[in-house]
Amino acid sequence: MAYYIGVDIGGTNLKTGVVDEKGNIISEFSVPTGADRPQDTVLQDIIGAIKNSIENSKVDLKEIRAVGLGSPGAIDTENGIVIRNYNLGWKDFHICEKISAALNIPAKLANDADAAALGEVVAGSAKGAKSALIITLGTGVGSGVVINEKIFPGEFGHMVIAYNGRKCTCGRRGCFEAYSSATGLINMTKEAIEKNPGGILAETAKLEGAVSGLTVFNAADRGDETAAKVIDEYLEYLACGLANLINGLLPEVVSLGGGIAKQGERLLAPLRVKVEREVFKGLKLPKIVTCTLGYKAGLIGAAMAVRNF
Amino acid sequence: MAYYIGVDIGGTNLKTGVVDEKGNIISEFSVPTGADRPQDTVLQDIIGAIKNSIENSKVDLKEIRAVGLGSPGAIDTENGIVIRNYNLGWKDFHICEKISAALNIPAKLANDADAAALGEVVAGSAKGAKSALIITLGTGVGSGVVINEKIFPGEFGHMVIAYNGRKCTCGRRGCFEAYSSATGLINMTKEAIEKNPGGILAETAKLEGAVSGLTVFNAADRGDETAAKVIDEYLEYLACGLANLINGLLPEVVSLGGGIAKQGERLLAPLRVKVEREVFKGLKLPKIVTCTLGYKAGLIGAAMAVRNF
Repeated sequence: MAYYIGVDIGGTNLKTGVVDEKGNIISEFSVPTGADRPQDTVLQDIIGAIKNSIENSKVDLKEIRAVGLGSPGAIDTENGIVIRNYNLGWKDFHICEKISAALNIPAKLANDADAAALGEVVAGSAKGAKSALIITLGTGVGSGVVINEKIFPGEFGHMVIAYNGRKCTCGRRGCFEAYSSATGLINMTKEAIEKNPGGILAETAKLEGAVSGLTVFNAADRGDETAAKVIDEYLEYLACGLANLINGLLPEVVSLGGGIAKQGERLLAPLRVKVEREVFKGLKLPKIVTCTLGYKAGLIGAAMAVRNF
Repeated sequence: MAYYIGVDIGGTNLKTGVVDEKGNIISEFSVPTGADRPQDTVLQDIIGAIKNSIENSKVDLKEIRAVGLGSPGAIDTENGIVIRNYNLGWKDFHICEKISAALNIPAKLANDADAAALGEVVAGSAKGAKSALIITLGTGVGSGVVINEKIFPGEFGHMVIAYNGRKCTCGRRGCFEAYSSATGLINMTKEAIEKNPGGILAETAKLEGAVSGLTVFNAADRGDETAAKVIDEYLEYLACGLANLINGLLPEVVSLGGGIAKQGERLLAPLRVKVEREVFKGLKLPKIVTCTLGYKAGLIGAAMAVRNF
């Protein structure tokens, strides 16, 4: 049997694991990233963590074919270089070359969101789908397109859906991310509170100490109509962006991940109705579900991305 | 050598041709579609036109591997059925089955815009590109994505770029098509004339008898600042939609076709500047060019779509 190493380079933790060719994790290992240290010091920890996960797996080194690294930031997949990783302060880091040399195993880089998307397709919510779209609704919005278990590079989180709309962190205005991220929902919640400072939503926020992505759901649970309207508006924008991508990419499955997706069917049920209204008439609707692998998606996907390497 | 038949099912003309495996047209034949006739009568003309183009090509029938049909409307590519073609009044038309039976050659359907996109990649403006995005700026906006000479189904013409914006023919609001089609440009021109009925733009429209996609360019040629502003606004929306797709799909080449693309560098030069401003920083910009094959793109692409059939 062939095995692959998956590495998820996070801002907080470095996760490594040995994964079999079907996407099962045989062993995993995690260390704090220590992002304030020089890149070559962090590299030593990555190599150490990989060695640890190999040892724990009891898999013969000869059976390990490749190392797949999932990294955020700007990366050059062809040459295995992290061009820029703002969270870690990395710059022009030839990480694949160094890992290959240290372990004598070929190494390859993938975008971390793309790797997570591939993980969901190989072993999670979109298992078996010929084409899948994985959308992460976190601090930002990330997109991953996987067709025939192959990652398609590119990022739709900064697709403008509202020309001249809300300012986005990327510099454009009206991006999908500016509306459909947790940050977008928090901004919509804050605006609703400003307009109605004496309402249940405002009160809920006060009780919680700060507005989070959960505040509006908690207030809605208390029967607040303002909160229900904010959720509805949030879902309208999310459906708009999803419909753009469903019409354009015709995925079989759309999986939603990230903090907001934890709302599950409460989010999915009304979302499906809105998406159906927005997509081309007669189009076979994709399954719209939530991601199931959590942090393991990135680890499994990074490993699966090097299966044919 | 292997040859393929390309058929472009247009509302006005049916075009057929014999195409070699490199995308060279060996012979072509065209007849009026006669769209008001029953679908089986039109079918007989398609079969006749195919036979004529084979005869003219002097290619041995045995060397013809397959027939590729490019059709507008809703199609079922897997089963070779035109589900609905509004221009031709076709409904649930099992066209591939009938053509295969009549000619004893396998037949396959493709979307006409996708076929044209493939034509441009095999033999036109995007020749040799690993990934290309072909955008047609006509009455509507059509998109074709071709990766490794393979058509990716899906349509981005109705991607919403302006939430709650201009009403689109599809029922949604704010679609790329509502702004970047010739129709969108004509609407912007008319609105500018209404606001400034005594200006050069209004005068130009009056001289021309009606507002067309050219009016604003002709007025700009006469030094009209209002016209220049309309063109600039049109390009802002076009750049917005293109940047969404460039960030999301990372094409090597973007080719623009349709009536408006005839403006060539006058359109492309300012467009490139605006697109560069909108896409991710550090992204290698795709070449942005105009399509070169005209109507032949659909014919060549329909034939090339069945090369591996």
